[in-house]
Amino acid sequence: MTNHWITQIESILKTDQYSKSISELYRHSHDESEHPPVEPELVCFPESTEDVIAIMKIARDASIPITPFGIGSGLEGQAIPLNGGISLNFERMNQIVKFSPEDLLVTVQPGITRLQLNNIINRHGLQFPVDPGADASIGGMAANNASGTTAVRYGVMRDQIVDLEVVLADGTLLHTGTKAKKSSSGYHLTGLFTGSEGTLGIITEITLKLHGIPEHTIAASCTFETPHQCAEAAHMILLSGIPVQRMEFVDAYSIGKVNAYGNYGLPEKHSLFFEFAGMKNAVEEEAALAQELMHDMNAENWRVAADSEERAMIWKARHEMAYAFRHQSGMTVTGGDVCVPISKLPELIDYALELIAESGLEGGALGHIGDGNFHTTISYDAKDPFQKLEAEKINEKLAFRAIELEGTCTGEHGVGLGKMKYQDAEHGAAIAVMKNMKRMLDPDNLLNPGKMFA
Amino acid sequence: MTNHWITQIESILKTDQYSKSISELYRHSHDESEHPPVEPELVCFPESTEDVIAIMKIARDASIPITPFGIGSGLEGQAIPLNGGISLNFERMNQIVKFSPEDLLVTVQPGITRLQLNNIINRHGLQFPVDPGADASIGGMAANNASGTTAVRYGVMRDQIVDLEVVLADGTLLHTGTKAKKSSSGYHLTGLFTGSEGTLGIITEITLKLHGIPEHTIAASCTFETPHQCAEAAHMILLSGIPVQRMEFVDAYSIGKVNAYGNYGLPEKHSLFFEFAGMKNAVEEEAALAQELMHDMNAENWRVAADSEERAMIWKARHEMAYAFRHQSGMTVTGGDVCVPISKLPELIDYALELIAESGLEGGALGHIGDGNFHTTISYDAKDPFQKLEAEKINEKLAFRAIELEGTCTGEHGVGLGKMKYQDAEHGAAIAVMKNMKRMLDPDNLLNPGKMFA
Repeated sequence: MTNHWITQIESILKTDQYSKSISELYRHSHDESEHPPVEPELVCFPESTEDVIAIMKIARDASIPITPFGIGSGLEGQAIPLNGGISLNFERMNQIVKFSPEDLLVTVQPGITRLQLNNIINRHGLQFPVDPGADASIGGMAANNASGTTAVRYGVMRDQIVDLEVVLADGTLLHTGTKAKKSSSGYHLTGLFTGSEGTLGIITEITLKLHGIPEHTIAASCTFETPHQCAEAAHMILLSGIPVQRMEFVDAYSIGKVNAYGNYGLPEKHSLFFEFAGMKNAVEEEAALAQELMHDMNAENWRVAADSEERAMIWKARHEMAYAFRHQSGMTVTGGDVCVPISKLPELIDYALELIAESGLEGGALGHIGDGNFHTTISYDAKDPFQKLEAEKINEKLAFRAIELEGTCTGEHGVGLGKMKYQDAEHGAAIAVMKNMKRMLDPDNLLNPGKMFA
Repeated sequence: MTNHWITQIESILKTDQYSKSISELYRHSHDESEHPPVEPELVCFPESTEDVIAIMKIARDASIPITPFGIGSGLEGQAIPLNGGISLNFERMNQIVKFSPEDLLVTVQPGITRLQLNNIINRHGLQFPVDPGADASIGGMAANNASGTTAVRYGVMRDQIVDLEVVLADGTLLHTGTKAKKSSSGYHLTGLFTGSEGTLGIITEITLKLHGIPEHTIAASCTFETPHQCAEAAHMILLSGIPVQRMEFVDAYSIGKVNAYGNYGLPEKHSLFFEFAGMKNAVEEEAALAQELMHDMNAENWRVAADSEERAMIWKARHEMAYAFRHQSGMTVTGGDVCVPISKLPELIDYALELIAESGLEGGALGHIGDGNFHTTISYDAKDPFQKLEAEKINEKLAFRAIELEGTCTGEHGVGLGKMKYQDAEHGAAIAVMKNMKRMLDPDNLLNPGKMFA
């Protein structure tokens, strides 16, 4: 027997725009996290905003939940259709709607990935610099307020979006902003829908700020005896005012893992990786000053990437960390994502590594140290419930400690399923306002239900 | 006869914390705009968040409106207590709550002004760079999402705030964020309350990002034959990727006015003013490249400020523009505040100057050309209703044209009273969501009523 709402959706879409095949239901049941998979009842592939509105209206009338799906690279289960219903896959809405190099703006559909976008705009000397590692969809990055290695220079997704087109739960289509670079008109709905993880509305278009590709780039790295020293050194760079393009911390354990995985031959010590970018003289001055400061902080192994190939290799190694951990057969990786005021970082990294050492599990710490954001990567045997519990306990302690230190339980991965338990502790009285907003915009709880709030 | 609610407020505050004196009621009846003054019934001077909560609760129980007041430098009537009630003056809540140079953060009370703040933190090599010209209160700047000459480099207030403490209409106290530099946890209430002009809650603390004072600064200026050429030249600078610290346009007419006012001796031509800041070599390279680009664009009178005194003079002249216009006895100045995608600027500036020329009124155009934001300054005889109407018509046409060009009716002054009539045209379906938020957070319409929405 087919449900009535499925028949209705089938009647408004082309045959290849929906699927109930086992493989598609499975593909849309999970993301890259360890959260248990849940299958949708139907996968839809909208090709236009009109398709999204039509599907939304049928879903609303039948009280069927809708969960948007980008490419499934999320790390907190945001794309898992917890209550079944519809998984809305945006892979066919992957076009550039309007490219305005003269305005340093581009309007895209949510399904385009960041590399697809950059492949097109790079030819015009422009880039969209937000880089979470995975080749995520821009829609997913907007919905989760993603950031990554370049946030220290360019900020997070929320800083890069001037306008969103959004379909509300009642089928209303609206724009949250304009194409002006700044505005003091109206309430800031752009910032509200960005990072709302599909719980307030469905994003169907995103207008992004673009940036020139820097004329010259220098990558460099150095090592320290302790993670604490790395954090202090990173702090020194920030205070110096050097406008680093990237500044990443990787602990010795993680370096060992990625060396084993990719044969990178990096010194197996606690390390900082830098990228400086801009005009040639400026960049050379910045790199030289950084080297001097790091020397004063007792850095060793200062090394400048000789060419763009070596530079690319360094960042490839950094991005492969998570895979390096997962590569171990039978092992699962869970990762924390805390972010605290910069001065609290040394203390929090030490605490994380102590917890891991005490647990007897394998794991390390790495992350976007210039923003005060770092990740733990803890491997455990998925078949051993004790190990799983231990790993979870570490991240839980770490998240609560981050909140105590006036930070956040999630710097960039989002709340999804995994960070729901910290929301009361982190947001206090503000949670009631957030829940009221959810009720106001989605009274029947159909938009990605079961995420963000209990 | 004294109202019951006034007696209640008098009973919880010290005698010098409230006033009904004629001079205080008058001082709190207006801002720097031409909107008609309206007096409050009572002015309160809270000294703590607890005072604000206590006043809010009495006001709520008696259904008395509350309008926050910073220093009254607003340009759209935001601080005018349209429905009487309480004007909440923050001049005694002007302390630094916590200065964390090691985190590049400072938490302040709303009544501190940007110069008071900078006077303290500059000694530590840090600055809060948002500069709207006036020595506005930080609370007012946050409530109105102010920006100004440095937004091209540092963004607007909303980009600089990591956390707000807010008192809601029901007396609830909440924090919108944490002290972490970035977060993907919860809905972005920080962005929502910033720019909400006191209509959703009362801001009682603001945590701001701080920035290092650049090691070296170069100011420069040049002139062009037409405003159109100025806009195109500014556009070229942006595309070049030179990270200007400031980039301002002033038309020849306005230069003439400020020369007459302050005896600055600037060439009376359409002009661009630049500031480059950072490390010495970098800044010199940037200024040299800018000079070369401007030469290619047929600039004349390229001039580099010889010393910090001359640099300060240039920015003083720029900030005095509005006063230069007002200085004419008996004349009032009204100003537009449109912001459009950068490529639309030349067209819009031409349009503005045509409208002014056709009207027979005196006026010019100037503004933050690197953000696509500019202001008209039109003088009219306040006693001549025809002239006033003409001036308003110009700004009205300009605002609607800006919206047609996918821009905004207000780049930085806010909506207040003056931009309410453009809200439907600019926000379309989003207006309903904004109004629902207002109803949700302020069901009795007590928080700065009569602003932003009809």
